[in-house]
Amino acid sequence: MLKHEIFGESHGPAIGVVLTGVPAGLVLDMEFIQSELTRRAPGTSAMSTARREADTPRILSGVFEGKTTGAPLCAVIENTDTRSKDYGKIKDLPRPSHGDFTGFVASGGCNDYRGGGHFSGRLTAPLVFAGAVAKLLLRPRGVTITALIQRAAGIETPTPGQLEEAVLAARAQEDSVGGILRGTVSGLPAGLGAPDFGENAEGIFAQYLFAVPAVKGISFGAGFGLADMRGSEANDPFYLDGGRVKTATNHSGGINGGITNGMDVVFDVVIRPTPSISKPQRTVNLRTMEETELVVEGRHDPCILHRALPVIEGAAALAVCRLMNL
Amino acid sequence: MLKHEIFGESHGPAIGVVLTGVPAGLVLDMEFIQSELTRRAPGTSAMSTARREADTPRILSGVFEGKTTGAPLCAVIENTDTRSKDYGKIKDLPRPSHGDFTGFVASGGCNDYRGGGHFSGRLTAPLVFAGAVAKLLLRPRGVTITALIQRAAGIETPTPGQLEEAVLAARAQEDSVGGILRGTVSGLPAGLGAPDFGENAEGIFAQYLFAVPAVKGISFGAGFGLADMRGSEANDPFYLDGGRVKTATNHSGGINGGITNGMDVVFDVVIRPTPSISKPQRTVNLRTMEETELVVEGRHDPCILHRALPVIEGAAALAVCRLMNL
Amino acid sequence: MLKHEIFGESHGPAIGVVLTGVPAGLVLDMEFIQSELTRRAPGTSAMSTARREADTPRILSGVFEGKTTGAPLCAVIENTDTRSKDYGKIKDLPRPSHGDFTGFVASGGCNDYRGGGHFSGRLTAPLVFAGAVAKLLLRPRGVTITALIQRAAGIETPTPGQLEEAVLAARAQEDSVGGILRGTVSGLPAGLGAPDFGENAEGIFAQYLFAVPAVKGISFGAGFGLADMRGSEANDPFYLDGGRVKTATNHSGGINGGITNGMDVVFDVVIRPTPSISKPQRTVNLRTMEETELVVEGRHDPCILHRALPVIEGAAALAVCRLMNL
Amino acid sequence: MLKHEIFGESHGPAIGVVLTGVPAGLVLDMEFIQSELTRRAPGTSAMSTARREADTPRILSGVFEGKTTGAPLCAVIENTDTRSKDYGKIKDLPRPSHGDFTGFVASGGCNDYRGGGHFSGRLTAPLVFAGAVAKLLLRPRGVTITALIQRAAGIETPTPGQLEEAVLAARAQEDSVGGILRGTVSGLPAGLGAPDFGENAEGIFAQYLFAVPAVKGISFGAGFGLADMRGSEANDPFYLDGGRVKTATNHSGGINGGITNGMDVVFDVVIRPTPSISKPQRTVNLRTMEETELVVEGRHDPCILHRALPVIEGAAALAVCRLMNL
Repeated sequence: MLKHEIFGESHGPAIGVVLTGVPAGLVLDMEFIQSELTRRAPGTSAMSTARREADTPRILSGVFEGKTTGAPLCAVIENTDTRSKDYGKIKDLPRPSHGDFTGFVASGGCNDYRGGGHFSGRLTAPLVFAGAVAKLLLRPRGVTITALIQRAAGIETPTPGQLEEAVLAARAQEDSVGGILRGTVSGLPAGLGAPDFGENAEGIFAQYLFAVPAVKGISFGAGFGLADMRGSEANDPFYLDGGRVKTATNHSGGINGGITNGMDVVFDVVIRPTPSISKPQRTVNLRTMEETELVVEGRHDPCILHRALPVIEGAAALAVCRLMNL
Repeated sequence: MLKHEIFGESHGPAIGVVLTGVPAGLVLDMEFIQSELTRRAPGTSAMSTARREADTPRILSGVFEGKTTGAPLCAVIENTDTRSKDYGKIKDLPRPSHGDFTGFVASGGCNDYRGGGHFSGRLTAPLVFAGAVAKLLLRPRGVTITALIQRAAGIETPTPGQLEEAVLAARAQEDSVGGILRGTVSGLPAGLGAPDFGENAEGIFAQYLFAVPAVKGISFGAGFGLADMRGSEANDPFYLDGGRVKTATNHSGGINGGITNGMDVVFDVVIRPTPSISKPQRTVNLRTMEETELVVEGRHDPCILHRALPVIEGAAALAVCRLMNL
Repeated sequence: MLKHEIFGESHGPAIGVVLTGVPAGLVLDMEFIQSELTRRAPGTSAMSTARREADTPRILSGVFEGKTTGAPLCAVIENTDTRSKDYGKIKDLPRPSHGDFTGFVASGGCNDYRGGGHFSGRLTAPLVFAGAVAKLLLRPRGVTITALIQRAAGIETPTPGQLEEAVLAARAQEDSVGGILRGTVSGLPAGLGAPDFGENAEGIFAQYLFAVPAVKGISFGAGFGLADMRGSEANDPFYLDGGRVKTATNHSGGINGGITNGMDVVFDVVIRPTPSISKPQRTVNLRTMEETELVVEGRHDPCILHRALPVIEGAAALAVCRLMNL
Repeated sequence: MLKHEIFGESHGPAIGVVLTGVPAGLVLDMEFIQSELTRRAPGTSAMSTARREADTPRILSGVFEGKTTGAPLCAVIENTDTRSKDYGKIKDLPRPSHGDFTGFVASGGCNDYRGGGHFSGRLTAPLVFAGAVAKLLLRPRGVTITALIQRAAGIETPTPGQLEEAVLAARAQEDSVGGILRGTVSGLPAGLGAPDFGENAEGIFAQYLFAVPAVKGISFGAGFGLADMRGSEANDPFYLDGGRVKTATNHSGGINGGITNGMDVVFDVVIRPTPSISKPQRTVNLRTMEETELVVEGRHDPCILHRALPVIEGAAALAVCRLMNL
C-alpha cells in the first residue's frame, strides 16, 4: 500500500519524502513530476513570495533504469535560497494562527522556528512530488483529478484577472485572502471504501487533505448546503445510462455510506487566508512572557490558492491510491 | 492506544463493539454509559422512528469486578425489535443516497440489505458505547465534549419547539431535514497533534467524524466562513490570561498547524437529511436493471440531529483519546 | 486486509473474535470451522484437561444467507463449564512462567485471574475460528497449511503411542512436557513479502505465531541448524523443473530476503512445557509479599502439542492471508 | 511512537532512514551514533569485505541546534565506493539463498540487482543509525542492550582468535560461516507488552529482528531447548529480592504471556552463513531460463557475525522503544 513520509524544514539542509509501497515497474515520468512541482513553485507571479528555488528533486532510491523497483523511493529537494536572518528577530514572537506557537509547545521549545520550520508551506513540495507519483499510478487506470478555485476573497469562481486584482488589493493593505478549492476525481469505479472507521472513503480523503497546511474544512457534494435541504432535494435519484447505474444529481459527491458510487467524487476544501501578513498583530513574547506587537517581515504569499491546486490534487491522488489499494 | 471495531447489522442477531487499548483500572460506570445510549435511542420523541429497543449492552470481556482489565472489552447489544418483512420487497431497489447501492456493489450483491444492514444508523449505538468509555477516560483529565444543534431545516440554533415544528412539517410531506451540529471540546492542553499526515489533529477528528453516517462535511473554527475573511480578520491574536497564552478570538477552532493551541476545539459537521423518506423516488431495480419508482415503507426518522448529538460527542471523544495517546 | 481481534477471558461470560476485511461472498463452511475447533477442543484424550465445552461459535454479524458480506464478522463462544472456585484460593499466588504475574503487573492488579483470564489457552479457540476462516480463503487459491509434532518430550517425530506414553509419565509425576511443531505452507507463489520491516515474510509469520501462548521460538528452514553450516551447505541451489525455478534443497524454508521463493514455507515453533503443573512450586504471595509454595489444583493439560496443531496452522493461515494481501 | 523507514540500494546514490516519532529535545549524540556505525562498518578486519566507506550520515531534518525537534528525522549516507561493474555480468544469475531471485520475482524484473540492491547488507547501516537513536532514548531510562557471539562456525562462545581462525579457514575454501547471536536487554520494567497479536513482546522483538538480513530464527530464554524440558525444569520460580519479585532462573527470557516480567530479556537469533560465496554454485539464468553455474566475484564477507552485533542491538533497541511506547 502506498505510504508517504514527508520530512524537512523550511530553512534546513533539505526537504523530501519517502514513498513506500510504490508498485514496481512504474516509469517515473520526471518531466510530469517536475511540471507538477513547477505549478506549486513560488516566484512565478506577482501574487507569490519572491523566494525562488528550482525545486528539482534528486531521487536517492527506489528507481532503477527509469522505473520504480518496488523498494522505498526517496526524493530530496535541497534548500538553496534561505534567508534565515529574516526570522531570528521574531524567534520568540509566534505569528497568530500559524504553527509557531503550537510547534513551540509541542516540542518544548525545540522547534526549528526559521520560516515556520517543519510547519512551512514549503513542505508541500514533497507532497506534490508524492501526489505526482500517485497520479502516474492512476493514469493508466483512467482516474483523473483536477482542482479549481471555487471561491476567493469573496468572489465565486473568480477569473484570473479578478483574482489577481483582489490579491494585490489585499497585499497593498499588508493582508491576505482565503478561498475554497473544489476537487473532482473522475473515473473512479463504484464500490471503493466501507462505512467503517478507517475505511470510510470520506474519512480517507479528509485525512489526506487536512494534512495540507491551511485547510480548515472539507465537504463532499452539496456539502454544508445539505443542512438546508430536504431529503427529497438532497437525494440523488438513480437512473440507467447505457446499462450503468448513475445518479441524476450528485449532491452526495460520489460517495454513499462511505463507499464510492461511481459518480465523480467532488469535494470542497476551505483554505484559510495566509496567516503571515505584514500588518502589525498582537502576540506574546514566549521568552519574556509579555504581550507585544509583531510585524512580520520576510517574504510571504498574500494568496496561496493557485499554488495550492497541485497540492490538493496530489493529496487527493494519494487518498485515491489508498482507496484503490494501490 | 484506544481502538474500536464496530460490528453488526440492523436485522442480524446483535450489534456490538470491541475496544482494545482501554487502560486497566477504569471503573466502568454503566449508569453513565446507559444514559448516553438512551440519548441516542429511538422511540423517545415524535421525531423518531417507532422502533423501540432497550439497547442494553452486555459486557462479554475486559471487565472484572466492575473495572477494566486492560484486555479487549467486548460489548454486545442484541437486536430484538426487527421487522425484516418490511425490507424484503425493496431488496433490489436501492434507496437514493443511502448505502444500499454502494453496499450492493462493494459486496458483489452479498450485503445484508435488511434495514440497511451494516450501513444502518443503528450501528451508531455501539459507537455511542465506545464514545462513552472514551468520555470516562477523559473525565478525570478535565476534558469535556458537548455537541448542540447549530442549524436545522434552515433555522439557526433552533429552539426545541422550532425544531419539532420543522421536523413534523417535513414528515407530513413524507420528507426529512438536515442540519449542522457544533461540537466543542474543552480542557484540552496545547501541544497535541502534529502537522504531518496521520498525526494532524484536524485529520484525526475528521476520520472519526466521517465514520458517523450522514456526516458530509467537517470544519474547524470559522470553517468555510474563512474563505471570505482577510488574514487580519481570521488570525487569532495572542494575549496573556493569568500567565497562560490564549487567543482573543478562536477562528482557528483551537488548532494551528495540526496541533491544539489550548483553546476549545470547535468543529461543525453537516448532517445530510435522512435519505430514507416515504415520498416516491426514482431508482433502478438492480436485479432486472430497469428504472422504477420506490416508496420506502418501514420506520424512519425524518430528523436525526438530536439523536446524533451523543454519537458526534462519542466520535469526538474517541478522537481526543487518540490525540492524547490514551 | 484481513484483521482479527480476539477477546474474552477463561471464566468470563464468553470468548470470541471480530474479523474485519473478510472478502464478501465467501461461503462460510461452518462444518469445516467446527471440525477445526474440535481438533483444538479439550477433553478428547487422556492427555488433556477434563474441561468439556461444546465450543460452538455463534455468528453475530458479517454473514448473510450463508455467505460473508464483507462487513466485520463477529463470532462468540459462550463459556459454560467454568469452575471459578478452583482459582480463588490461588488468586495472589502467581504460577511460575504463566501470565499470572505479568498480567497482574500490567493491569495494576485489575486482571481477571480466574483460570488465567485473558491469558488462558482457552483464547486459542477464537484464534482457531479466525484461522479456519483464513483457510477457507486460501483453499480456492491452492494454498494448504499443515502442522505436525516434530519433537515432544525429547522424542523426534514421536508416534501417537510414544507421545501418549511420555505425556502420561509426565502427568504421573505432576509434570508437563514441551516440544516442537513444524508447519508447512504449500502452494504459495514466489514474490510475497519484502525485505523491509513490517513487510518481511518471516517477521509476519513470527508476529502471528508468537501471539500463540507457549510459543517461545520460531525458525525457518534449517533454522538454528544454520549456525553450524557453511554457506555452501546452507545455500539452496537453483534448478529448473518444468520451466519453473526451484531449489534443490530448502534450508531457507521458502523465504529469501524476506520474500517467498515459491518453495514450501517451512517453519518450526518451540512450545514450552505447560507451566500449570501440580508439583509444588516456589512463588511469592503478591498481596502479603511473602515467599510461599504453590500447589496448582484445577484441571490442566500435561501436554498441549496435539491441541496446538490447529492453532499453529490457523495462526499461519492468517499470516499467509496478510502476505497475500487478502 | 518511534517508527523508521529505511531506503536505498547498495549501488544507488545514497542510503538512509527517516525516523518519525522521535521525541523533541533529545541531544543527538553524533559521536555515539558514529561509533555504532563504525562497529558495523566494513573494511576493519581480515574477516570483512574490502569495501571501505566512511558511512558518515548527513542529517537532513528533524534536528535543530543539536537537539531533535520532534519532526521527522532524515539521515542520509552517500554511497561512494561502488564498483558496479562487478555485478553486471551476473545480472541474470541469482545467487542461491540471496534475495536476487525473490527480488527479481517480486519486482517483475525491475529490481536494482547491483550488489543486491535494496536487499544488500549495506542497508543495515541506516538501521544501525536508527538503533543508535533508539539507544539514546533508552539511555536515560536505564535500559541497556548488548549482543554477543554465542556460537560461530560450530564453536560455542568462540574467542576472537578462534573466530578469526574459523572464518579464515572458510574463506580459504571460498566459503562462509554462520552462528548465533545472543541479545540481552537489561533494565526493562515488568509489565510491557500484552498477550494479544500486535502487542505481544516476543512478536514485537521478532518483527524487528527478522527485518535484519540473514536472521532465520529467534527464540527467547531457553529457546528451542524448552522442547526437551519438563514444566518443573522450565518454570522460573519466583522469589523476593529486596522487596522485588524476581525469578530464580530465566528460562522464559524475561517474558511471560507476552509481557515483560522484569528480568533481562534474553534472545537468540541464528545468522545464516553469508550466501555470497566464491565457490561455484548451481543457478538458473533468468533471462535464458537455462541452468548454469555461478561464480560470485565482487567483495564479500565470509562472516558477518561481528558486524551484525550493533545491527541486532539496534533492532532490539527499536523494539524496546516500541514496547515502552516511546
